[in-house]
Amino acid sequence: MMKTKQTTVSVPADVPKSKEKEYIANMLAVTHGVGRMALFAGDQKIEHLNDDFYGEGVSPENANPEHLFQIASQAKISVFAAQLGLIGRYGKKYPNIPYLVKLNSKTNLVKTSAQDPVSTAMVNMEQVARFKKDSGLNILGVGYTMYLGSEFENQMMSQLGSIIFEAHQQGLFTVVWMYPRGANVPNERDPHLVAGATGVACSIGTDFVKVNFPKLGDNNDPETRAQAFQEAIASA
Amino acid sequence: MMKTKQTTVSVPADVPKSKEKEYIANMLAVTHGVGRMALFAGDQKIEHLNDDFYGEGVSPENANPEHLFQIASQAKISVFAAQLGLIGRYGKKYPNIPYLVKLNSKTNLVKTSAQDPVSTAMVNMEQVARFKKDSGLNILGVGYTMYLGSEFENQMMSQLGSIIFEAHQQGLFTVVWMYPRGANVPNERDPHLVAGATGVACSIGTDFVKVNFPKLGDNNDPETRAQAFQEAIASA
Amino acid sequence: MMKTKQTTVSVPADVPKSKEKEYIANMLAVTHGVGRMALFAGDQKIEHLNDDFYGEGVSPENANPEHLFQIASQAKISVFAAQLGLIGRYGKKYPNIPYLVKLNSKTNLVKTSAQDPVSTAMVNMEQVARFKKDSGLNILGVGYTMYLGSEFENQMMSQLGSIIFEAHQQGLFTVVWMYPRGANVPNERDPHLVAGATGVACSIGTDFVKVNFPKLGDNNDPETRAQAFQEAIASA
Amino acid sequence: MMKTKQTTVSVPADVPKSKEKEYIANMLAVTHGVGRMALFAGDQKIEHLNDDFYGEGVSPENANPEHLFQIASQAKISVFAAQLGLIGRYGKKYPNIPYLVKLNSKTNLVKTSAQDPVSTAMVNMEQVARFKKDSGLNILGVGYTMYLGSEFENQMMSQLGSIIFEAHQQGLFTVVWMYPRGANVPNERDPHLVAGATGVACSIGTDFVKVNFPKLGDNNDPETRAQAFQEAIASA
Amino acid sequence: MMKTKQTTVSVPADVPKSKEKEYIANMLAVTHGVGRMALFAGDQKIEHLNDDFYGEGVSPENANPEHLFQIASQAKISVFAAQLGLIGRYGKKYPNIPYLVKLNSKTNLVKTSAQDPVSTAMVNMEQVARFKKDSGLNILGVGYTMYLGSEFENQMMSQLGSIIFEAHQQGLFTVVWMYPRGANVPNERDPHLVAGATGVACSIGTDFVKVNFPKLGDNNDPETRAQAFQEAIASA
Repeated sequence: MMKTKQTTVSVPADVPKSKEKEYIANMLAVTHGVGRMALFAGDQKIEHLNDDFYGEGVSPENANPEHLFQIASQAKISVFAAQLGLIGRYGKKYPNIPYLVKLNSKTNLVKTSAQDPVSTAMVNMEQVARFKKDSGLNILGVGYTMYLGSEFENQMMSQLGSIIFEAHQQGLFTVVWMYPRGANVPNERDPHLVAGATGVACSIGTDFVKVNFPKLGDNNDPETRAQAFQEAIASA
Repeated sequence: MMKTKQTTVSVPADVPKSKEKEYIANMLAVTHGVGRMALFAGDQKIEHLNDDFYGEGVSPENANPEHLFQIASQAKISVFAAQLGLIGRYGKKYPNIPYLVKLNSKTNLVKTSAQDPVSTAMVNMEQVARFKKDSGLNILGVGYTMYLGSEFENQMMSQLGSIIFEAHQQGLFTVVWMYPRGANVPNERDPHLVAGATGVACSIGTDFVKVNFPKLGDNNDPETRAQAFQEAIASA
Repeated sequence: MMKTKQTTVSVPADVPKSKEKEYIANMLAVTHGVGRMALFAGDQKIEHLNDDFYGEGVSPENANPEHLFQIASQAKISVFAAQLGLIGRYGKKYPNIPYLVKLNSKTNLVKTSAQDPVSTAMVNMEQVARFKKDSGLNILGVGYTMYLGSEFENQMMSQLGSIIFEAHQQGLFTVVWMYPRGANVPNERDPHLVAGATGVACSIGTDFVKVNFPKLGDNNDPETRAQAFQEAIASA
Repeated sequence: MMKTKQTTVSVPADVPKSKEKEYIANMLAVTHGVGRMALFAGDQKIEHLNDDFYGEGVSPENANPEHLFQIASQAKISVFAAQLGLIGRYGKKYPNIPYLVKLNSKTNLVKTSAQDPVSTAMVNMEQVARFKKDSGLNILGVGYTMYLGSEFENQMMSQLGSIIFEAHQQGLFTVVWMYPRGANVPNERDPHLVAGATGVACSIGTDFVKVNFPKLGDNNDPETRAQAFQEAIASA
Repeated sequence: MMKTKQTTVSVPADVPKSKEKEYIANMLAVTHGVGRMALFAGDQKIEHLNDDFYGEGVSPENANPEHLFQIASQAKISVFAAQLGLIGRYGKKYPNIPYLVKLNSKTNLVKTSAQDPVSTAMVNMEQVARFKKDSGLNILGVGYTMYLGSEFENQMMSQLGSIIFEAHQQGLFTVVWMYPRGANVPNERDPHLVAGATGVACSIGTDFVKVNFPKLGDNNDPETRAQAFQEAIASA
């Protein structure tokens, strides 16, 4: 789920005057003026390795990394999220796609049961600015996955705070995947915790947040879960 | 408890001449000339996640992050403390509020019993200066939570020393939440320890310190506790 | 195995206009216009210590570090990969060799069973740029070994992302040795995992990737392995 | 014990020509031309928390942090050592005191038996230079506590080497509290070890060193200890 | 043992044109034109604490740190290696000594059996450049001790690579004490391992390397050991 924070564009106070127009344009582009956005994620080749791209029931063309760009350029999406390296490789061929630079990624090789998750940025915001300028690509924002409750929470929280500030300074918006995870998080999808995650996202200043849809123990009745999600929606 | 260090404004020696006026103005604004201040804390959405904002006995409007700003703009407070991101989101709509940027925050997911607490700044003082300038908001100071006795004490102590110096260099005051906490701290509210915490705060140069009200083992008789607090008051 | 990402040179979007010619020249030089390259590795004196250079069946001249340069200058190779220090020592004597600066290296003394592997850059990209300029040597690119699934994966991933970006900014290409390794990687040569490693390489933006040829448990029949490798080829 | 390294001022080679006069003046001021100095320590409110300032047999006025400045301004001391924050708070009121900025401090909450000690600088030398300039206070030098034999020895050693160099570059002298401490140090006051500590201090370039007076197991006869200290004096 | 890499001065490619003369002069000064150098080590007061300077059979004058400078100024040595701090203290009195700044040092308090060794630089190369300029001393090069096979190998390897590059950029030569050491190194003096250590030194670009003379288990017959050392000599 991806929720916008407002239906009209209210510019955060850390966006400087000189970048307000750009910020508003980026926000309107991604929300289509309706306060919702459809983010198309293209960061799975690190996050899930080859799990989504090969095997029974998966079309062979999926294996080609460019396939994601083909979809993104034709589908009605708001923004296509991928690592800078991937955008760098195929971006020039698909200049019409609105891009979001996914700043951090980790593989799924180290399971949460073995070590608490940690993932920090592969490029900094000054590099993103140079990339945007050099490439001329339509880069609207940046994204970051944050693992709340990990023993490395502080490392990511510190970095994310600065990233959001610097993104706003450049007129870019931010998307945070806010996932409670680690040995100290018994239920990642507890409704109260998911609501808390949206509160963290709001406090740290992100423009958009993605949280997991809550689950209530064994009770997975859709209606109950939708109701449980009201807490998160209320606090976002 | 929030205690001022003086009733008239004596400017610390690390405030440069060019910033003395601003420092004095910030201090007078926050102490109302009576040497006391009422800080309204708005950092709980990270510190406590959604615990304070939803549930039985909590009014539904509390869930909205903006609610804190509505209170802050109407109540008789000295300063409203929140993360830069949160101030960035709602600050322009509430330009009359005096703000304090809370620099660090952690969630309560990792319990002290599982790991000693660590929390470092999400933005640095140079970024705070840019934020103040770009936003034009009424930012009076910065805040930091420090966990004494944590195995990460040194990491926070080193960072805090620099933050206070740089805040003073900009004419801002500082508030430190000085909490002894961690596996090596058997009683966080021991009166002698609380008094020690105020001494640390004083030595590191903060303008204000918040400590916990002491407790004496099983003896929680208010009068005894008030008396126990005399040590802390004497050393602050 | 070393695979090129394209047979004609398509310039990544993070190569600035002013460096496109240099990037194209470097890529054409190393792929000979046929989309394949023969990298000659000269970094084993750190990676394997003296294992490859002395002992029964090894010619005595192998012990001399310069021997590698003698081969590189006469053989039909695309590029010779070595640490900056080694290139610095012998490079001027062999100015015709196309060089690749191998940025990181570790010895084999700490076994994977004792500690997960970690290896970070010995020089940064700004130093590489100075080296290229001062030496006048024919430096075409840089290389990095990345250990996926190591508990230090994040440290290397973060560094590698920046290195590839800065290399492209200078018009250099990059080669990544992408090796899943560590306590959380039961089979380094699992075909599905090897395919995943190529996907990571692609997402992080490297121009070339070296992966290990897959193995299927006890089934080491060449044909079966070659077939297993199809997954990796498809996703690269 | 505080020992000067010479009775006449010989200027270390890392003091630049332009700062020699200042260095000589600082050294003469602190040694009164007799090669000895009486340092008055005011850093205990972090190091010992409130242990020295409250309780039976301690005069109530001791609790006031300013009390130390009152003593320092009246007593015949060479230099008053305190954290920058504390000097910042009271320094302007006591401009006649010669100050030494104590750069690092830790509390006594984490016992050596629980974790090896680590303590790094709260402000860097560039900040000290700004402080000296802005405050106009009579700052003669900087101080640092170094824990030899701690598992964090390397972290402090690296930082201390740079601090001493940069202090000398500014014409300031340095005082090092050189304490062997940690799980690998069975007897902190072993005479041979104390002598070794003075050698470390000398090698790292400090102008003054404070070591603990040695102890010889159960033999605490003053004469024997004084004799044991000869080794340290000889090597300093 | 200290081995030169060549008998005539061949300038590494990372020495810029403007510093070639200085590099050649430094190399000729230290090798006396015969491709060998006699390094006089003065870094033991940190490395061995007071073990070499006091006790039965040690002349009392040895305790004085200046004693080393007296020897160095009179003996026929190539270069005197000491920490910057020690050179800073006595260097001006002994301006005729050729100096080598030993960048890192650790005490022997933490035994290898308790923790793998780690030792990083106390000053960086920019500080060394300032020191050389300010002091006018005859500084020819810098030195570093590297512990191969330590769990901290990567930390030192990364730092050393940059140090050697920056030293060459300044026209200084480098000496590396290359010692395999740590829980993963069962025999530090294994001939094959010692040979490997020289290979690492060569690959990282140092001008000189010091390794331990090999040992073959119980066989300590000098001839056998000398023969064992041939492998190291061959690969250096």
